[in-house]
Amino acid sequence: MSKRYSIGLDYGTNSCRSLLVDLETGAELGSAVFNYPSGELGILTDPRDPNVARQNPQDYIDGMVAVVTGAIEQARRADPGFDAGRVIGIGVDTTGSTVIPVDADGTPLGLLEEFRDNLNAQVWLWKDHTAHEEAAEITAAARRTHPQYLDRCGGTYSSEWFWSKLLRLKRVDPGVFAAAASFVEHCDWIPALLTGQSDPLKMARSVCAAGHKAMYNPDWGGLPARDFLASVDPALAGLRDRLYHRALTSDQLAGRLSPNWAKKLGLRTGIAVAAGAFDAHMGAVGAGVREGTLVKILGTSTCDLMIHPNQQELADIPGLCGIVDGSVLPGCYGLEAGQSAVGDIFLWFVNHLVPECYGADAAAKFEGMERAMVGMKPGETGLMALDWNNGNRTILTDVRLSGMILGQTLHTEAHEIYRALIEATAYGALTIVNRFEEYGVKVVEIVCTGGLAVKNATLMQIYADVLGRPMKVSQSEQTCALGAAIFGAMAAGAVESGFDSVQGAQEQLCRVRDGVYMPDRGRHETYRKLYGIYRRLHDAFGTSDWEGGLHGVMKELIAIREGARAE
Amino acid sequence: MSKRYSIGLDYGTNSCRSLLVDLETGAELGSAVFNYPSGELGILTDPRDPNVARQNPQDYIDGMVAVVTGAIEQARRADPGFDAGRVIGIGVDTTGSTVIPVDADGTPLGLLEEFRDNLNAQVWLWKDHTAHEEAAEITAAARRTHPQYLDRCGGTYSSEWFWSKLLRLKRVDPGVFAAAASFVEHCDWIPALLTGQSDPLKMARSVCAAGHKAMYNPDWGGLPARDFLASVDPALAGLRDRLYHRALTSDQLAGRLSPNWAKKLGLRTGIAVAAGAFDAHMGAVGAGVREGTLVKILGTSTCDLMIHPNQQELADIPGLCGIVDGSVLPGCYGLEAGQSAVGDIFLWFVNHLVPECYGADAAAKFEGMERAMVGMKPGETGLMALDWNNGNRTILTDVRLSGMILGQTLHTEAHEIYRALIEATAYGALTIVNRFEEYGVKVVEIVCTGGLAVKNATLMQIYADVLGRPMKVSQSEQTCALGAAIFGAMAAGAVESGFDSVQGAQEQLCRVRDGVYMPDRGRHETYRKLYGIYRRLHDAFGTSDWEGGLHGVMKELIAIREGARAE
Repeated sequence: MSKRYSIGLDYGTNSCRSLLVDLETGAELGSAVFNYPSGELGILTDPRDPNVARQNPQDYIDGMVAVVTGAIEQARRADPGFDAGRVIGIGVDTTGSTVIPVDADGTPLGLLEEFRDNLNAQVWLWKDHTAHEEAAEITAAARRTHPQYLDRCGGTYSSEWFWSKLLRLKRVDPGVFAAAASFVEHCDWIPALLTGQSDPLKMARSVCAAGHKAMYNPDWGGLPARDFLASVDPALAGLRDRLYHRALTSDQLAGRLSPNWAKKLGLRTGIAVAAGAFDAHMGAVGAGVREGTLVKILGTSTCDLMIHPNQQELADIPGLCGIVDGSVLPGCYGLEAGQSAVGDIFLWFVNHLVPECYGADAAAKFEGMERAMVGMKPGETGLMALDWNNGNRTILTDVRLSGMILGQTLHTEAHEIYRALIEATAYGALTIVNRFEEYGVKVVEIVCTGGLAVKNATLMQIYADVLGRPMKVSQSEQTCALGAAIFGAMAAGAVESGFDSVQGAQEQLCRVRDGVYMPDRGRHETYRKLYGIYRRLHDAFGTSDWEGGLHGVMKELIAIREGARAE
Repeated sequence: MSKRYSIGLDYGTNSCRSLLVDLETGAELGSAVFNYPSGELGILTDPRDPNVARQNPQDYIDGMVAVVTGAIEQARRADPGFDAGRVIGIGVDTTGSTVIPVDADGTPLGLLEEFRDNLNAQVWLWKDHTAHEEAAEITAAARRTHPQYLDRCGGTYSSEWFWSKLLRLKRVDPGVFAAAASFVEHCDWIPALLTGQSDPLKMARSVCAAGHKAMYNPDWGGLPARDFLASVDPALAGLRDRLYHRALTSDQLAGRLSPNWAKKLGLRTGIAVAAGAFDAHMGAVGAGVREGTLVKILGTSTCDLMIHPNQQELADIPGLCGIVDGSVLPGCYGLEAGQSAVGDIFLWFVNHLVPECYGADAAAKFEGMERAMVGMKPGETGLMALDWNNGNRTILTDVRLSGMILGQTLHTEAHEIYRALIEATAYGALTIVNRFEEYGVKVVEIVCTGGLAVKNATLMQIYADVLGRPMKVSQSEQTCALGAAIFGAMAAGAVESGFDSVQGAQEQLCRVRDGVYMPDRGRHETYRKLYGIYRRLHDAFGTSDWEGGLHGVMKELIAIREGARAE
């Protein structure tokens, strides 16, 4: 069989990147990054309202050309015989819910002359939080009449999600709302663009996006019922038929690459373009997710993804923010959990509370703190933290929580608090693992990816010791783009790709690194005791039905600290 | 009446100081400081054991000469007509329990050639913590057979106190123990030295020291019963008759200044030397304590002192560390409460967790943080802290507690935490006020003294707003030495001093500054809500019988924060 390649396109919050993969060897032949030029780090903001986060759709287009041609150039430099004509498919992942108002020709309103300077006509980025009141209204309406709509999104509809943003737009800028023939997710618009599909009603829509963010579920006939939408706002009901009735898994073809785009990108006309999905879900595929694998994407926050065969019984799992059929792998439920802040907590700490004796800048301070605490024993700090500075996504699904640090003396130092914060995020991770298993989803292995997994060996060892499980790290540093490339190949079909299933492609292309982080039995024993304390505090502050006493907490931490120091 | 003066001598942990007061006008004519030259900042330490804290008795002697002659010199410079012969008395306060082993001639063993290099023969400073096991034994023995011994010292006998130190010395250095004819408190030895009283059995002993630290109480015949001491260790029982059977209030005469010391100090032979007492107790007198006055000595920790007429019924007040007849004012019970760490918490924070963007050193960081937070509203930080980094003295009397900070987001800054820590100490102060009043000791006014009271206006205003009461600040910056000077005058008698009571002297000599910190009604209202949250956390973590839920805590703090920011 002759050489065949696939390209994954990964749209992040501040940049996009490509990965060009050899589908036989798994070799990553080219990868390019494009930082969005508009706004601040690619985000259009409004000085009058910190909740506003928009993007310029032109950045997506310019970025696509740059990173695809960049990757091809790299591949050619590495191998002069490389033939871009043998790229058989393209897959796309993006952030979400990142919503684009489009006209009847599928053109984002933000690209039209008349709306170019109107922030409301631009892309509403996932982290735009202007629609918090609208989210509360939608949640209240669903609780009243359609509680099932909330069951699989953690019980609360978010300001970050599709319907909240549409309703907000209608209220703050009726003109733009009226000008929009339809609304698409970013991950739906890129494949439509590439395939020349200009009719919003015919664009391939991602089931991953639809299921998580637009309350789409075949069990209730797709999008939410018209009467429900009307009860929130008649304008939403009017939209229902201008969106979609069916959503696709990403192994399915969104369409074929148009001649126009083939020329711009230097690829063959007519190659497969897969239906899009969200970044974390494709990242899980790129990290090799299979039944029993928990993929942890460890960054500023975490996404924790598992799958479950959809022909088997699956209980509702309380506190999971998303359970969507086909969102990760076709034929399986995708199960999404996560922690609202992990790397962000360390960044907050280093930027606001770490003196210069550890180093001159944030990177040096992290290194200095790591050196100071790497040899410490579990419990030696005497500290216990709750990792809720940005709320708790799983298992409490509660944004109105906050951080806590307990156990300070007059001698507590910054590196000890840093260690306690890492440990707190590890306890949060363990709580998620336990929740999966309590509801029958066995965690057989854990594969980590994302910046912290690659860069922070101290953190990874603490996680192994706290969880009492080996922690693997994905070989690829571009797991999201790798997952997208796999779906690009799948969309091309078995004959062309040589893969008869996503799992087959994963076996060929997804690897973990040597040097798995192994748990230490003694350290894990102490961490079991400490986790008991964490869980008491977690339940005391995080659940409404907890009743008990906490008199022992500080004393137990002191006793464990004394034990650790006496060793 | 011709001019008359008194001298107060105040022995602190690292230095001693004098105050020479005009008994008619209250003018402070001279004051000198002497830093103890021995060891580290005057403390003899042992590199093998961080619990060791001893002092060189020679430092006390050298310091006394320096600060008394220094004060007289200052007075002469200010007024060439000043006559040291008109100094009518000397009073002395010291730290405690600071224990000195002495020979049969009343000479500290540490001054003898044979013991000069033996740390165990030196002064055992109050903060020597080597005797923690011995303290636990004494507590256990008292619980078994004489629980009343613990009732008035907070339920636990401390490693810092008299009998623990004696027992420790006997165990670690029987030779020194055997060489000691008796043991005296620092505040007893200085008056004995000045008056030439070399017989330990005849030295005037302070009821303040005896009552707080040596379990002395006339109700049970003075020192603890011989059989009790024997049950702890027969060697202690053997000591009982080599100590004392009677202890004095500080208005009483310890003796008259010896010719030898009169010459060294440049004073008149035969003037009155008052019985000594502990620094905080004399500080309360210097700050003008009277019935209904709470004196707060605000420093690295706090002492909170009140008095109660001993002819009136006084309930046991749970959690108060000392209730001793005559320890502050003769004829009254002295009531002692306190917070284990106040200034120490701020110093810990500034030294370990405040980045240089606030300033180059600790003083500049404090200033920078104060500037950043001075205009904030109650609750605006969203934070709540527990002020237990060094345990809780009142009302929980529990050293095995620790600090806590709650409510952090990803935006919380150091100056907000600093504010929360100040507020936490204010809530701790309010808890003490409430405890006094719950047991019938009405707090009519609060007078503050000590470094924080003078230097930290932001803290003082927060205290006023939290407590909902005016906070006064003592005029004198040397309230301990002023109290000692008052007792020096009292010991000289009414004819010489012109005062027929301590209260009369206080009326003449003790003033509060202009610029009382007045509470703001609106801020106090918010602090009432916040104190409710503090108290829930206080009871949840600090008491064994608390049962309840804490689910509302983080949400209430967020709601109060949102309210404050919306104002």
